[in-house]
Amino acid sequence: MKIIALDSSGLVASAAIVEDDALIGEYNIQYKKTHSQTLLPMLDELKKMVELDLATIDAIALAKGPGSFTGLRIGSATAKGLGFALQIPIIEIPTLDGLACNMYGTDKLVCPIMDARRNQVYTGVYEFVKNQDSPVTYGLKVLTEQCAVSVEEIAEICNGYGREVIFLGDGVPVFTDKLAELMKVPYGFAPAHMNRQRAAAFGILASTYYKEGKMVPADKHAPEYLRLSQAEREKNEKANH
Amino acid sequence: MKIIALDSSGLVASAAIVEDDALIGEYNIQYKKTHSQTLLPMLDELKKMVELDLATIDAIALAKGPGSFTGLRIGSATAKGLGFALQIPIIEIPTLDGLACNMYGTDKLVCPIMDARRNQVYTGVYEFVKNQDSPVTYGLKVLTEQCAVSVEEIAEICNGYGREVIFLGDGVPVFTDKLAELMKVPYGFAPAHMNRQRAAAFGILASTYYKEGKMVPADKHAPEYLRLSQAEREKNEKANH
Repeated sequence: MKIIALDSSGLVASAAIVEDDALIGEYNIQYKKTHSQTLLPMLDELKKMVELDLATIDAIALAKGPGSFTGLRIGSATAKGLGFALQIPIIEIPTLDGLACNMYGTDKLVCPIMDARRNQVYTGVYEFVKNQDSPVTYGLKVLTEQCAVSVEEIAEICNGYGREVIFLGDGVPVFTDKLAELMKVPYGFAPAHMNRQRAAAFGILASTYYKEGKMVPADKHAPEYLRLSQAEREKNEKANH
Repeated sequence: MKIIALDSSGLVASAAIVEDDALIGEYNIQYKKTHSQTLLPMLDELKKMVELDLATIDAIALAKGPGSFTGLRIGSATAKGLGFALQIPIIEIPTLDGLACNMYGTDKLVCPIMDARRNQVYTGVYEFVKNQDSPVTYGLKVLTEQCAVSVEEIAEICNGYGREVIFLGDGVPVFTDKLAELMKVPYGFAPAHMNRQRAAAFGILASTYYKEGKMVPADKHAPEYLRLSQAEREKNEKANH
């Protein structure tokens, strides 16, 4: 089973190729270029480097959202185009679930936070628990499903669990001071090689989804924004006046 | 501070660019090509993608060994060439230390194992402990320094610590059955997005080394093999007969 994984939900553009639970290649960029300039060229470069025949790909895994509206649309358009052309399904991974997988194997709670602007974060709370059918692997358990809330709310949720938390994601530099005020349980931050989206993590999670049949036809896929876009909000506000 | 990190010590060819504790880009390939075909082209591709001016680089971080003899020589030659041309130092990272950093934040022991052939592994045992000067970060603590031993020996060392262990590295698929026989403490394996060398992890560790002044001039760098090469062993055996 061979999967191409893509993520452009945040500041990082990321592409990976996963084959039978092994990572064949990954390419991650966090740079000021827009994802439309980076994502496909990166995948093309990876494809050449590992002499990938696109006809052998079984599915496209994608960070389905939430995240940057433009970023999500670029990722979705790319995945849909590939899926449609290759006649293969899309495996939609909740962005925060994929981000949490960076911290596999920790005993702490994992709380990814992405800056959602307007004083909100996209976030969720996760832990890793031993897989029942395997003594040697852990599975990702969702404690609080991904959502858009204020940083005060997610801090309160974390404090409520009463356990040490590791935060990661592009919300960390934005809310470091705020978290220092709000957190009542021990907490920490993931280091730089683990604190942003990696398509590789989405690809590995997608391998499990694939075995469980959790995928959609390319034409049925749509990003999950979790909130209205700025344009939609402004339109609604006008309509209500 | 800007660091280029390279790793070609094992099956993976990997390049990363780290700037002020942020990961700007990384490119990892695990494919049948030799590292001499991949490492420099990958770095060149990364460099173009993030419009990197090589004159702004402060140091080259490198997996110094142990590992594949040919792989280490390709990595060292590349790092020395870059370091010499750019007049910047090399930060030598023990391969197993860099590999252990993939599992940042776990409470389990971390035991990377690389297949060293002749029934040996390159290995070490690590744990993560809270940094004394920071309430929010963990540091890598070396419990057993990197070494070349039999899988029986490293299993005994791990059993001796009496704590759950996470194994990672290219030795895992080779010694899975053997470990099942030998291990007396709970253990697990890292998932595919975390179980091989990542130059990004070496680069982040190198940021700390850089601040501590732990680096060498490019012309003073040499790989650390930990064992004699096959050619040297055979020569010695002949001499002793």
